Amino acid sequence: MYTESIQTEQHQRDIYASRGGVTAKIVPRRDPILYCDIDDSGVIDSPALQSYRKNGFLVVDKVFTQVEVNTFLQEMENLAGHHRRSGSDEAIVEAGSAEVRSVFRIHETSPLFKRVASDRRLASIAEQILNDRVYIHQSRVNFKPGFRGEKFYWHSDFETWHVEDGMPRMRALSASITLTENYPWNGPLMFIPGSHKYYVVCEGETPEENYKRSLRRQELGIPDDAHLRSLYSEGGIHTVVGKPGSVVFFDCNVLHGSSGNITPAPRSNLFFVYNALSNRVRSPYCDCPPRPEYLCSRKNVTPI
Amino acid sequence: MYTESIQTEQHQRDIYASRGGVTAKIVPRRDPILYCDIDDSGVIDSPALQSYRKNGFLVVDKVFTQVEVNTFLQEMENLAGHHRRSGSDEAIVEAGSAEVRSVFRIHETSPLFKRVASDRRLASIAEQILNDRVYIHQSRVNFKPGFRGEKFYWHSDFETWHVEDGMPRMRALSASITLTENYPWNGPLMFIPGSHKYYVVCEGETPEENYKRSLRRQELGIPDDAHLRSLYSEGGIHTVVGKPGSVVFFDCNVLHGSSGNITPAPRSNLFFVYNALSNRVRSPYCDCPPRPEYLCSRKNVTPI
Repeated sequence: MYTESIQTEQHQRDIYASRGGVTAKIVPRRDPILYCDIDDSGVIDSPALQSYRKNGFLVVDKVFTQVEVNTFLQEMENLAGHHRRSGSDEAIVEAGSAEVRSVFRIHETSPLFKRVASDRRLASIAEQILNDRVYIHQSRVNFKPGFRGEKFYWHSDFETWHVEDGMPRMRALSASITLTENYPWNGPLMFIPGSHKYYVVCEGETPEENYKRSLRRQELGIPDDAHLRSLYSEGGIHTVVGKPGSVVFFDCNVLHGSSGNITPAPRSNLFFVYNALSNRVRSPYCDCPPRPEYLCSRKNVTPI
Repeated sequence: MYTESIQTEQHQRDIYASRGGVTAKIVPRRDPILYCDIDDSGVIDSPALQSYRKNGFLVVDKVFTQVEVNTFLQEMENLAGHHRRSGSDEAIVEAGSAEVRSVFRIHETSPLFKRVASDRRLASIAEQILNDRVYIHQSRVNFKPGFRGEKFYWHSDFETWHVEDGMPRMRALSASITLTENYPWNGPLMFIPGSHKYYVVCEGETPEENYKRSLRRQELGIPDDAHLRSLYSEGGIHTVVGKPGSVVFFDCNVLHGSSGNITPAPRSNLFFVYNALSNRVRSPYCDCPPRPEYLCSRKNVTPI
């Protein structure tokens, strides 16, 4: 058991308590969605900001060119090859096969992806919405290979980042760059629009080193059926389809997931999670040691 | 081992040999797709027949009314409840949960579904395309429940019906009636159009009682990656979406599958397989005893 006095105090005033003996429920979000004003002074205009506030995500097409995407795909294959050879913990293989599912910490291991993480096309939007300097909380590439790509079940990223990483508040967002065409049928990203306005408290206890299982197949920190049905009946489902080079910006607390992929067309994406510098992680809110640095930047929080 | 002299002879002239030591490959189909003439004398007109011949399937919307669909859904729940209580072999539960995945032989156990199986809206189309009297080779309801509905991997029905049931030739088709709305994202039926013009020979040996595994998760009789990719590059993927009460007629040899369903919306369907009376099953083409009657009508081949 990992305990320290600061953690106990932190637990007592945890407004986003989840797991650890609590009862599953839906509670209102206690934080802003947009930390900026809704006007046209920033990179994204007010209709786009309003859409983000309403739905919890924003899709921007044609942010990266096909030439750029091709260099990303090549770098992704290089990283996968490297990790296959080294068997590093930073690469996660699929639960149902030996194929690489994700590689983490790509903003530090790859000079190319380090540049992408700080590209103004991404970072300036994160800075605008979060209205703060930002740093990379987590980065990864998801391969979602053809034929045997496994699902990602519905979850709020924030629930895990709060409980297991100690992220205090909802002041972070992800930018997902599509590297292959996202069709309706190859396991595209799905959102429940509006679900970011609630916090879904989940049941269960977090075992130590939960991430070793959860990154292959998440079984903790997932909303129960009744709560999912309720949020779905309100917001429906939005599927992100489109050409490579698009970017999906999404709130840290919006419920999302994706189906498995049995088609021959892989559905690969880069993910960069931007956290506000004022929202740096503390001790985890569960009784476990912090997750490794490759899943959660704790030491390296240099702002972009 | 199940052997008889007729079987050995049958094996020697097996034009659709698959599994049992053969090498995976794609060979041309040796049978007609349409057994009728392409004209406007039958229930379906010549453009629809041409489309079926080209793609291997035909979607007909609004065949059953919502009132009829509601009675089917109620009957489906009754059957699931009955099978949950009795633990019958004829009900298959999901690999990943205890929920009912399929219930078989519904054209015999349910008077309502017996009537549906012989409904002229289905049977007359089967008779037209197969140009013969027809009987039900297999019937089932697939529940594809919400949240945890598992995928059906790519397969040709005929490959299994030939190898494991002894169906001699490609002169059968399925009619699938949609009972819930089929969205792009709740695991709808997917086809590789044009794939029915080939026969994909699969590798592997058929163990006895393979159906006890394969009906939960098919691992035999599935095309290899290279062959799927090749047929996909030619025909792409077609996803069947639409309102309840539609019917999808599809050739026994067209490659089809469906993704898992993590959404709250179940994707339930009735399936009736019509086989030409002249194409009744013989001994299986593998060295296993015949599968049970609930998976393959061997004794009860009364024409509709």
